[in-house]
Amino acid sequence: MSDAADAHTPIRGGVPEHGRVPKYFAVKTRLESVLDELGEGGLLPTERELAARFEVARETVRQALRELLIQGRVRRKGRGTVVAGPKLEQPLSTASYTEGVRRQGRVPSRHLIALEKLDADAVLAADLEIGTGSPVWHMERVLLADDERVGLESTYLPVARLPHLDRNFAPDTSFYAFLREHLGVEPVSVNERIETVLATPREALLIGTPPALPMLLLHRSSRDASGQPLERVRSLYRGDRFSFTVQLEKNE
Amino acid sequence: MSDAADAHTPIRGGVPEHGRVPKYFAVKTRLESVLDELGEGGLLPTERELAARFEVARETVRQALRELLIQGRVRRKGRGTVVAGPKLEQPLSTASYTEGVRRQGRVPSRHLIALEKLDADAVLAADLEIGTGSPVWHMERVLLADDERVGLESTYLPVARLPHLDRNFAPDTSFYAFLREHLGVEPVSVNERIETVLATPREALLIGTPPALPMLLLHRSSRDASGQPLERVRSLYRGDRFSFTVQLEKNE
Repeated sequence: MSDAADAHTPIRGGVPEHGRVPKYFAVKTRLESVLDELGEGGLLPTERELAARFEVARETVRQALRELLIQGRVRRKGRGTVVAGPKLEQPLSTASYTEGVRRQGRVPSRHLIALEKLDADAVLAADLEIGTGSPVWHMERVLLADDERVGLESTYLPVARLPHLDRNFAPDTSFYAFLREHLGVEPVSVNERIETVLATPREALLIGTPPALPMLLLHRSSRDASGQPLERVRSLYRGDRFSFTVQLEKNE
Repeated sequence: MSDAADAHTPIRGGVPEHGRVPKYFAVKTRLESVLDELGEGGLLPTERELAARFEVARETVRQALRELLIQGRVRRKGRGTVVAGPKLEQPLSTASYTEGVRRQGRVPSRHLIALEKLDADAVLAADLEIGTGSPVWHMERVLLADDERVGLESTYLPVARLPHLDRNFAPDTSFYAFLREHLGVEPVSVNERIETVLATPREALLIGTPPALPMLLLHRSSRDASGQPLERVRSLYRGDRFSFTVQLEKNE
């Protein structure tokens, strides 16, 4: 999707009505023009060169680059910094991560971090409509697109529904495809909540991002066609690489 | 909505498989227990007191508090820091900000920053299905809930549709209510895209947040019942105060 509103921000975006524009922000605005000229994949000049060109301290350039990195406008490549591509646009839908990424022409994969049995606490038990203390599977996987780590997903579901998940399921494949094959069920009604959070050090390590990078966190509760709770999912996506789209229709 | 997955994070959240937990993160985890004990609105001990209690440097406490502030777990109140309430949960819908906030039992209001005519650039013109260079209204308003500034919204629409917007519309009222009354139209089909961005210095100043606070940015394109493009909207919400919910049904 194009971004017409942002097309106006160079004029207005950085200029407070009162007060002054911070120096790093002025540098960042000028750097954005450099990025546009370079185009996706283009290699940025070094911090030293940029500091000389803009006649500012290297720390000022570094602060501007840090924000551009957090926003996904640039990315590290080897020892250099290159212009990043646009964020992925993932439709919010009942479909899985796998299907969403495929629709964008990228190759999805997953890497298992943990598959373990836990006792459901009161909150999780209520969500899954099982007894407190009932066993639940917790499956944690790193999400990849074209071999790039882009997210981290934790799925919780009752062990009673899939007693042999640990034996039957190949964790680098689509879990929803597995559910369809083995149980003949799939999520048909999904509640989702989206917020922005900072990655914890552990999460940053697993996803390979700088710590404290803003992430998009999706909380999902899904039900199958019979109305029975199916799973609870916590999906963390890199805020510099993902955006989510949704089509809304007035129906009241 | 409760958050069962997060209930497990104290055990696992901060512990890298390899590498050590940063000291500030350990302090943050201990601080979260303090917040739970204090409850919403509770006043935190001073940085000096916390540093003494946890036997760490004040800078370490400060870093932990900074993250808790960014995440909306605490907020400034006068010269102190208090435990913040939960994030607002705003349903994604074709309805306006006004209606969404009212549904949560809070009082919405808006404060006009700018109402001006611009010439549509090629991207905006294509979105609104008008000629490049055609005049468009740009209306920018700070969004408030219970007198707290929570967001910043820019609306773009063709001047041809509402030639006298600047004379007829009271900018502290609901724009969608105005559209219904004056044009008999409303958004019935909406494309929305959500991402996380950092506030610019100007935006931070207008919303009253620390600069570089992660925000949720919604890009909206809406059409009326006849299928005609109605508006393009760029809405920026405080990431520490807002989350968005959506109900999805499998329909393929």
